[in-house]
Amino acid sequence: MGMNMTEKIFAKHAGLDKVVPGQLIKCKLDLVLGNDITTPPAIKEFNKIGKPVFDKTKIALVPDHFTPNKDIKSAEMAKIVRDFARQHEIVHYFEVGQMGIEHVILPEKGLVAPGDLIIGADSHTCTYGAVGAFATGVGSTDMGAAMATGETWFKVPSAIKVELTGKLAQGVTGKDVILTLIGRIGVDGARYQSLEFAGAGVASLTMTDRLTIANMAIEAGAKNGIFPVDQVTMDYITGRVKKSYACVCADEDAEYERTVTIHLDDLKPVVALPHLPENVKVVTELEDIKINQVVIGSCTNGRLEDMEQAASVLKGHKVHKDVRAIIIPGSQQVYLDAMKKGYIETFIEAGAIVSTPTCGPCLGGYMGILAAGERCVSTTNRNFRGRMGHVDSEVYLAGPYVAAASAILGKIAVPEEVK
Amino acid sequence: MGMNMTEKIFAKHAGLDKVVPGQLIKCKLDLVLGNDITTPPAIKEFNKIGKPVFDKTKIALVPDHFTPNKDIKSAEMAKIVRDFARQHEIVHYFEVGQMGIEHVILPEKGLVAPGDLIIGADSHTCTYGAVGAFATGVGSTDMGAAMATGETWFKVPSAIKVELTGKLAQGVTGKDVILTLIGRIGVDGARYQSLEFAGAGVASLTMTDRLTIANMAIEAGAKNGIFPVDQVTMDYITGRVKKSYACVCADEDAEYERTVTIHLDDLKPVVALPHLPENVKVVTELEDIKINQVVIGSCTNGRLEDMEQAASVLKGHKVHKDVRAIIIPGSQQVYLDAMKKGYIETFIEAGAIVSTPTCGPCLGGYMGILAAGERCVSTTNRNFRGRMGHVDSEVYLAGPYVAAASAILGKIAVPEEVK
Repeated sequence: MGMNMTEKIFAKHAGLDKVVPGQLIKCKLDLVLGNDITTPPAIKEFNKIGKPVFDKTKIALVPDHFTPNKDIKSAEMAKIVRDFARQHEIVHYFEVGQMGIEHVILPEKGLVAPGDLIIGADSHTCTYGAVGAFATGVGSTDMGAAMATGETWFKVPSAIKVELTGKLAQGVTGKDVILTLIGRIGVDGARYQSLEFAGAGVASLTMTDRLTIANMAIEAGAKNGIFPVDQVTMDYITGRVKKSYACVCADEDAEYERTVTIHLDDLKPVVALPHLPENVKVVTELEDIKINQVVIGSCTNGRLEDMEQAASVLKGHKVHKDVRAIIIPGSQQVYLDAMKKGYIETFIEAGAIVSTPTCGPCLGGYMGILAAGERCVSTTNRNFRGRMGHVDSEVYLAGPYVAAASAILGKIAVPEEVK
Repeated sequence: MGMNMTEKIFAKHAGLDKVVPGQLIKCKLDLVLGNDITTPPAIKEFNKIGKPVFDKTKIALVPDHFTPNKDIKSAEMAKIVRDFARQHEIVHYFEVGQMGIEHVILPEKGLVAPGDLIIGADSHTCTYGAVGAFATGVGSTDMGAAMATGETWFKVPSAIKVELTGKLAQGVTGKDVILTLIGRIGVDGARYQSLEFAGAGVASLTMTDRLTIANMAIEAGAKNGIFPVDQVTMDYITGRVKKSYACVCADEDAEYERTVTIHLDDLKPVVALPHLPENVKVVTELEDIKINQVVIGSCTNGRLEDMEQAASVLKGHKVHKDVRAIIIPGSQQVYLDAMKKGYIETFIEAGAIVSTPTCGPCLGGYMGILAAGERCVSTTNRNFRGRMGHVDSEVYLAGPYVAAASAILGKIAVPEEVK
């Protein structure tokens, strides 16, 4: 039997000809990532080892969760990361003002490439599978050790092949693909497995779609999500990725534990109801669900195309009087590009607020926390109980089109309902 | 003896021909203001009275301190204000997205007019003296009672006449005027007194200068600060103020306890060192003081002209690598106008972050809280110990020109030092 993409990346980084699911291997790492929450404990572990960093160009530190500092504690944590970055001359440290959300800026700045093996002390590190890298979230202890050694241990996951056919209709996006998949297989449907996307439908997905899909692989319990490298990938990384890299592709006889087929043509705009990402329903089949807040942004949907989708719906309309609409470009570059394209003006004129890039409300950090009984339609990735605030608040996950339409109508809606 | 401006406004609102300093009077109110922090306790007091609101068009509720909600507690407080506003059909309730910082939007939207008597449960309510109104901060209990009765008690303050002569040099602003004044008379220099600005120098001050100056009357301990109504005032309020109003001017033989004269020509850019607004020094006379953060915004300096001043310095430059520069337009309108004029683009390209309107860091709320040992140059109004974060952090108060130059150079500086 041949190897799938994940196995091939593992084999290469372990210096082996072949790996099989369940095998324990030690791999060299191309990038180690941490944020303002996870890096301070990682530094503590790193310091116990007493070695220098393995490669100051292969560590990325992105204070994005509670920055600009939301309180004294987060200020102290950001300072620990900053001081460490200075002391060890970390090249890819992103200060407030040069930054954005980690999983938006790393691809944007070309720090993740096809064939890379990447770990990050953040569960949505799996985002980089969109460019054909193996990328997964780890704990701070693993991050700390990896900053010293440049290596870490893995158990090779088995893989699920997600066969995509057809093409998404207008108004249906990568968010609908991944939510539909999670709805189908459940939040533990791919536990410690690789989700390997394949099939003729892949070519029709934009890089933004792919980043959104790979980002939420973890919400299906997956170790990683990974896309084949094609022309869309090459168009995206050309001019961004300056380092050398080596693409891998799955062997024709690669082994998969099972295949899940998604016909993109059949997909409709969906929403994941509280309190699990698997509670997926087609928006047009819902009863009226009144909302108090909309959040558009995050590592899942904070890219320029997401801003464009939101702006296309909000243009010329007003946010419903009972709704706070919070729009968060995922990086300074997305913010600038969105401004130049007129999207930010559209948002402000619609009565939405535009935040500086931050994870903020997604994880209940700040910039839009919910009170008891409040409901939010959010383009973020998790709707667990209390995720965005009070334990009695509710988060409905959707893509930017649905979120923007919901902001206007004050209830969960698709753009076609906006008059 | 005649009456000064404050006495005339009091006499009129108390239905008396004359009032004198020290007199206790009951006055009708033209506007009662509260924010997301002060309104919930005011509502509690209001509910004890058991009456409807005195006038739903004369109450302004502005959730601006911890909004978009920074945590569950602030979300609950904002919800109390929102529910109250709906229940009592408060006309001037400003939801997230339609809003800004209270003392920026009330003048901007024409809700404060010459001759008005205004109380607000926020100490910087004195800002509205810029348009020739009497305006002062009160506690939440007074606000709650006033929402029911439309009246409150005052002790008529004595007045200090601040005689302004000459004209500010380029690069010197209202912030330098008020900081210089506070440096001269001290933070208790005008305790329970009115600061009445007068003299030929007034005409040369823009409305933005006046709003900044009146805003910080409280930092001299004053009950209020008030400007005469002149052409600048009329130009500002024309088209904004829709309600009827009646300007007052001081009698020629008005009584003042003392006169302080400020020659505007002599003023230089100044900064108030930690930890009191009276610790005022001329910037060019300082040793190098390295900084970690710059904040440009707030009810003191969050208007379009402030954004313009900051942009004029930052244009074509980069924020220093060791500095986080946080720029906060004071309202959605200021944000939109600043974007249309290209200032926001200038800020982002310089590596500053642009926040949605909020009080945020000024009072240690969020959006730029300081860690131990960190220093911030801020256009806000208070530099008390721990005001912006850790008890061992430091805040240096300045105007937008100095703040922007400091952001570029990483130390407290004037624009002339930027190469």
